[in-house]
Amino acid sequence: MSNSSKPAPGTADQMIEAGWYTELSPMWPGQGLTLKIKDILHRAKSDFQDVCVFESESMGTVLLLDGVIQCTDKDEFSYQEMIAHVPMCSLERPAKKVLVVGGGDGGVLRELARYPHVEEIHMAEIDKMVPEVSKRFFPEMAVGFSDPRVTLHICDGIKYVEDSPADSYDLIVVDSSDPVGPAEVLFEKPFFEALHRAVRPGGIVCTQAESLWLHLDIIKALATMCKEVFRGGSVSYATTTIPTYPSGQIGMLVCAKAHAGEREGEDGKAEGAAPLDPRTPRQPEPGPLPALGVGELKYYSHEVHSAAFVLPLFAKRALADCLTFQ
Amino acid sequence: MSNSSKPAPGTADQMIEAGWYTELSPMWPGQGLTLKIKDILHRAKSDFQDVCVFESESMGTVLLLDGVIQCTDKDEFSYQEMIAHVPMCSLERPAKKVLVVGGGDGGVLRELARYPHVEEIHMAEIDKMVPEVSKRFFPEMAVGFSDPRVTLHICDGIKYVEDSPADSYDLIVVDSSDPVGPAEVLFEKPFFEALHRAVRPGGIVCTQAESLWLHLDIIKALATMCKEVFRGGSVSYATTTIPTYPSGQIGMLVCAKAHAGEREGEDGKAEGAAPLDPRTPRQPEPGPLPALGVGELKYYSHEVHSAAFVLPLFAKRALADCLTFQ
Repeated sequence: MSNSSKPAPGTADQMIEAGWYTELSPMWPGQGLTLKIKDILHRAKSDFQDVCVFESESMGTVLLLDGVIQCTDKDEFSYQEMIAHVPMCSLERPAKKVLVVGGGDGGVLRELARYPHVEEIHMAEIDKMVPEVSKRFFPEMAVGFSDPRVTLHICDGIKYVEDSPADSYDLIVVDSSDPVGPAEVLFEKPFFEALHRAVRPGGIVCTQAESLWLHLDIIKALATMCKEVFRGGSVSYATTTIPTYPSGQIGMLVCAKAHAGEREGEDGKAEGAAPLDPRTPRQPEPGPLPALGVGELKYYSHEVHSAAFVLPLFAKRALADCLTFQ
Repeated sequence: MSNSSKPAPGTADQMIEAGWYTELSPMWPGQGLTLKIKDILHRAKSDFQDVCVFESESMGTVLLLDGVIQCTDKDEFSYQEMIAHVPMCSLERPAKKVLVVGGGDGGVLRELARYPHVEEIHMAEIDKMVPEVSKRFFPEMAVGFSDPRVTLHICDGIKYVEDSPADSYDLIVVDSSDPVGPAEVLFEKPFFEALHRAVRPGGIVCTQAESLWLHLDIIKALATMCKEVFRGGSVSYATTTIPTYPSGQIGMLVCAKAHAGEREGEDGKAEGAAPLDPRTPRQPEPGPLPALGVGELKYYSHEVHSAAFVLPLFAKRALADCLTFQ
């Protein structure tokens, strides 16, 4: 039984058989979610990746990039709310200027737009086909692009961050796909050094950071690197449940830049203001945004925020040395 | 594309194709986890169900009952630890006598055996093939059967509970499969009335209670019924993450029986001692059990316990009227 006729992972083409789609990837070998297809709505090759949209029987409309699920109508709110509101509500003062790297579906923009105190929301997305497809097939996510505070930059996110003035953002959200293909560089040290430079002291960089159940080694390496880059600040990890991501869970690494007065003492310990502890929310839960037709939150609350940082023992032990707060 | 050649759900036979197994069920239509098979180790029809064990490429050995995943080597500890330790650590006084209904794989027994203060552990399992298969293929779970305090009763769990003396258990864990097939009756009111009678005042009944993402209606109906049966006590809901269960999450309903002095006042409200709030652990985290070769906990901690009761907003709103504490 070990020789399989199942198609190898790759483009969506290879993963759609007889009316069912199976999400296979070298990132989670030997397993995958299977969804029944009602209708394939869009198939195209962009300059960067394979883009596919289909209507599923159980999860509404589904977006695949290089054959991997990015979001579905039914559960996207969990990821989008958590990766936006966990860092936004952790900040010591309300964010005014925020940047999203990737996230071309617009869902994180929609969540950031809930905060009246935000003045500028920038998005650096490399692939112009993603916002186009989202506007056409995912109007509830793409609504984020309609907020007047949003500017979409179609460009290389790394270069955009490198070219940003130092200390210029209260928050940067890195809403990337997995570290294979175009997003691979978004998990490497030069990019995190650029992020650290671009965010203000006391500000936060929050990045998509895979699943504790599948990728503990990747998370450990990423957190170890971030702890070095955000020296004097803090690195923490939060999770959310989401049925259509591999293992049903995804996490985010929350990296806070040291406060301005902070520096490393002779004993290697930070001196000055204590680093930001993101486990306690400080800003109010955001409300609906009637101007864009955005309703109440569906996943995030302050209670959910704090609980999201509580890790199961196997993960807590594995990450003990590389997280500041857990 | 909407006419599918995928086999209909049913036995494991129908779900194993070309070296891959896909978990399809009317309980989660249009979706399912797919696992690559290395080797099929066991296939049989018991008196009650289709029993299959296979070696998977990514999750170790897998047990299927009627084609549905019951446990895998890689993630069983999450479910077994949480359904045992959340109620055990919630109790106001250490449990001495506990009952498991179902749970024939032995994993919950292994977890209950960690507590030195437990004197008797009874299991009522309807299908003798499940413990047999577990002893043969899942030695790390079946180790629970070796504890001298354990008595295995191969019988109808409902009848066993009905025949138990009133107020006789500190805790009853209902470790059932889904409410289709042999376990259907384990989700119905007569069974919960029998459970309520058999557990002592202030004791807990903790039952497997599906996924918030897939079965909010089932959970709502179950919790509403339990709130009626456990009048004067409390009904709460906790979750755990587990990649090989549908949606990657499963929950448990934690029902505490009213304390002895408690009764319903004229206004319909309970009088006497406040009902047990299971969100706060009261008993120490259990340690390893060297006599059986059982190591440290891998998932459960007191922190994880309290966080498990924090529900995402969509679920909190849906269950607001039928849970006592959330």
